[in-house]
Amino acid sequence: MNGAQALISSLVGAGVEVCFMNPGTSEMHFVHALDSVPAMHSVLALFEGVATGAADGYARVTGRPAAVLLHLGPGLGNGLANLHNARRAHTPLLCVVGAHATGHVRYDAPLQSDIEAVARTVSGWVHTAGTTRALAEDAMRAVAATTANGGQIATLVLPADVSWTGGGRTAAPRPPTPLAGVGEAVTAQVAAAIDGRHGVLLLGGRALTQRGLRAASRISQATGMRLLAETFPAAKDGGEGVPTVERLAYLSEMAVQQLTGMRTLVLAGASAPVSFFAYPGKDSDLVPEDCEVLSLADSIQDVEAALEVLADAVAADSQPLLAAGNRVQPESGPLTGSNLATAIAASLPENAVVVDEANTSGYALPAALAGARRHTLLTLTGGAIGQGMPVATGAAVGAPDRPVLSIEADGSALYTIQALWTQAREKLDVTTVLINNAAYAILRMELARTGAGEVGVESARMLDLSDPTPNFVDIAKGLGVPARRVSTADELTAALENAYAEPGPHLIEAMVPAVS
Amino acid sequence: MNGAQALISSLVGAGVEVCFMNPGTSEMHFVHALDSVPAMHSVLALFEGVATGAADGYARVTGRPAAVLLHLGPGLGNGLANLHNARRAHTPLLCVVGAHATGHVRYDAPLQSDIEAVARTVSGWVHTAGTTRALAEDAMRAVAATTANGGQIATLVLPADVSWTGGGRTAAPRPPTPLAGVGEAVTAQVAAAIDGRHGVLLLGGRALTQRGLRAASRISQATGMRLLAETFPAAKDGGEGVPTVERLAYLSEMAVQQLTGMRTLVLAGASAPVSFFAYPGKDSDLVPEDCEVLSLADSIQDVEAALEVLADAVAADSQPLLAAGNRVQPESGPLTGSNLATAIAASLPENAVVVDEANTSGYALPAALAGARRHTLLTLTGGAIGQGMPVATGAAVGAPDRPVLSIEADGSALYTIQALWTQAREKLDVTTVLINNAAYAILRMELARTGAGEVGVESARMLDLSDPTPNFVDIAKGLGVPARRVSTADELTAALENAYAEPGPHLIEAMVPAVS
Repeated sequence: MNGAQALISSLVGAGVEVCFMNPGTSEMHFVHALDSVPAMHSVLALFEGVATGAADGYARVTGRPAAVLLHLGPGLGNGLANLHNARRAHTPLLCVVGAHATGHVRYDAPLQSDIEAVARTVSGWVHTAGTTRALAEDAMRAVAATTANGGQIATLVLPADVSWTGGGRTAAPRPPTPLAGVGEAVTAQVAAAIDGRHGVLLLGGRALTQRGLRAASRISQATGMRLLAETFPAAKDGGEGVPTVERLAYLSEMAVQQLTGMRTLVLAGASAPVSFFAYPGKDSDLVPEDCEVLSLADSIQDVEAALEVLADAVAADSQPLLAAGNRVQPESGPLTGSNLATAIAASLPENAVVVDEANTSGYALPAALAGARRHTLLTLTGGAIGQGMPVATGAAVGAPDRPVLSIEADGSALYTIQALWTQAREKLDVTTVLINNAAYAILRMELARTGAGEVGVESARMLDLSDPTPNFVDIAKGLGVPARRVSTADELTAALENAYAEPGPHLIEAMVPAVS
Repeated sequence: MNGAQALISSLVGAGVEVCFMNPGTSEMHFVHALDSVPAMHSVLALFEGVATGAADGYARVTGRPAAVLLHLGPGLGNGLANLHNARRAHTPLLCVVGAHATGHVRYDAPLQSDIEAVARTVSGWVHTAGTTRALAEDAMRAVAATTANGGQIATLVLPADVSWTGGGRTAAPRPPTPLAGVGEAVTAQVAAAIDGRHGVLLLGGRALTQRGLRAASRISQATGMRLLAETFPAAKDGGEGVPTVERLAYLSEMAVQQLTGMRTLVLAGASAPVSFFAYPGKDSDLVPEDCEVLSLADSIQDVEAALEVLADAVAADSQPLLAAGNRVQPESGPLTGSNLATAIAASLPENAVVVDEANTSGYALPAALAGARRHTLLTLTGGAIGQGMPVATGAAVGAPDRPVLSIEADGSALYTIQALWTQAREKLDVTTVLINNAAYAILRMELARTGAGEVGVESARMLDLSDPTPNFVDIAKGLGVPARRVSTADELTAALENAYAEPGPHLIEAMVPAVS
């Protein structure tokens, strides 16, 4: 057994059963070893950002790490933006980066670069495998490391010779790292500080599962404390039968309004609110000056359990407030951000995974989705656009029994559009609503917010996707995904129903005027 | 004047007149400042790898650095693979990475990451601007640094507040860093060691300009020394009227044959030959054991001048051997790698820039191009595929009076396919021959070379681009570039002639069976 075979066998034994990959020559023995370990499901991506984003999406819906296989430093570079997003999502993810054979490194061949230095910027754990004998144990350490610190990236750099040399030994899985607990004194302190009239419980991370939301809702029902969710959750349950929680706005002007009057802020799996970007003359810190901030649990602690303990302490007899199925009626007429949202919400199938990278055009989605059928929402955790379509791809691999809806902005889509090909190859039930407004509309808004001044000819050109306007129906067809263009709400509803009913991926290009 | 305005004005003053970009919110003041400095030509890319590759291509044809503007750490990550290639090409390139405002950093907002750590892996110079007052001087240092060490990447990290704050001052350009010289003793030593029967002069970097090639050819003509060029030149002149030099083969099995019998190896701007990857049981070092290796000049030295000094010393009266215009006749029939090459060579316009990322399907190109009209060849210097289309885009911006031919493999094209959109927007005269063989054919070959064993079902699937086979005509149309598919040599010739005759970009999808 060579190193690669021992590695892959051991990964499968540890529950890592999917490997998203974009391999090269230094990974050929890894690829070949896939033939001898059929339990490993390998998924090819045409670009590394698709592979890393898919591994993120997979873990967000399964709770288990996938592996991703990348080709040397440049492959890691191509995957880095979505690893950044995965890091911000606290996603458990095993990143295997193939490297030159140990003896080849000193020749500084063209693909040589400092892999570890790049990996460290996104990983909680980095190690370069030194021997074939120890490789599988290294991998088991790595898999266990993915569950440390509330979920993180573990990067195993894999020299080609460590893969190809014989004498590999499989290794037994190690137990996952348990989440850190929350001390009784902390729960008691928070319980004592609860301020029903002026208090906010800010939920993030695992606090946004059904379990966390139910406990939080009980607290809110009993004490009057207001609930808010972090702006960009990794995975948030919602819809019928799940407590509704308003999300903190992306625009800090709006977030400040949401937080006005708050005197006590309890953090439950979320960080204290700060603006996404800095703006001239505006504070980054969004917590009002006279507000006391307490942490119930941070991202590495067991926030679900902590919320239940807190609920039992302050709301023993209360019940969570569950959303009724207030299904919105789809509206008619030419598409707008508003009727796009109602069409999506009204037609959403039960138990869907909704991946939202709609940016400006998605402004009406949260309100519309609150009354939709039960679903899980995955968002852009790290701000690095180009995450939505890869995450949707991985979510569909991880949850083949759930429909996946990928709501995607044109500008963001074009970073990792190659995801469509993997959806076609794997016949994944992903429905992409591609919102084409022919602009980086969010940047037009941001340029105004930064107070830079009036937009001139040259700067407008840098924020505009027209001239030429991409045609996503053509692009999708070229990548093997059936596609159609819609420009009214009724057409969108019909296209969505058709896409959900038919197996495999579909793309719906929704022509929506840019928000100005 | 704010920092961004002072920065851009000063860059233009220093001859940096093009900025390829994919900006975000933290770069909005930079974008806005473009309106006040119309001499800066800004070019939008839909993906950062296009922007960085384009900056590389621009510098390869102009000899002058372009700027590239990226959005924080993830933007740098997306651009990293082509920065890696640019590093290997010794390309002067100014990389400006926008960052959060200085005061925003401590809040660890979602897009915060360690930009400098990533930048250092590809840059010879890295600096984070601290004050608006010093920003333009920082930029002038950076521009000068791009010409140090034979050409390198200088990365200036630009916090948003340093851009937006008033009190910016323009700065005067600094002279470029001259290339290091070659001592007389070295030239004399090489002259004394020249071994006409068993010597090879290996040319790389600037030795492959017309000037360098003419001097090298004189030496070869006078002494009998054999000339070879490095495998993947950044820019190599060739065709009619230019000395022909065989390139060292990518396949080390073939390179070893080319080097058999060599007893003296003189390096002129090239590194000593090593295999691109390592293979089980094979040497990485391709220099025969009994061969003496001498360095005339390395990549940071003035190799053109050194070759002329050497030529004057050992070949005072000899003339270079210039290629005659042995125009190959285009062949007919269904497309193969061979008649594809003759069709391309026969129709190549005078003074074209040829970007070669054809990989396996391009095997017949070097021989065919030797007798073509005069041209400059740009190749994949760092092995990170996805370079060709961006480099072709930047070359067309840098040399608007030269036709650009981009020969591209399907697998590689799909890493940075968004380059087509920039070609369409900028109306660039780029003709792309997209070789569609529906496979990572090079990896099939590499799997065999690594001796991993027979290809099984699962591994074959990881090296295959069929199921579904991308349709590049559809993809190109979707990105605004007119496209047609050809499957015979005659159709290819006709399509090439049409593309060269008509302004703006064109894509020709050439259906060629995979080399097996």
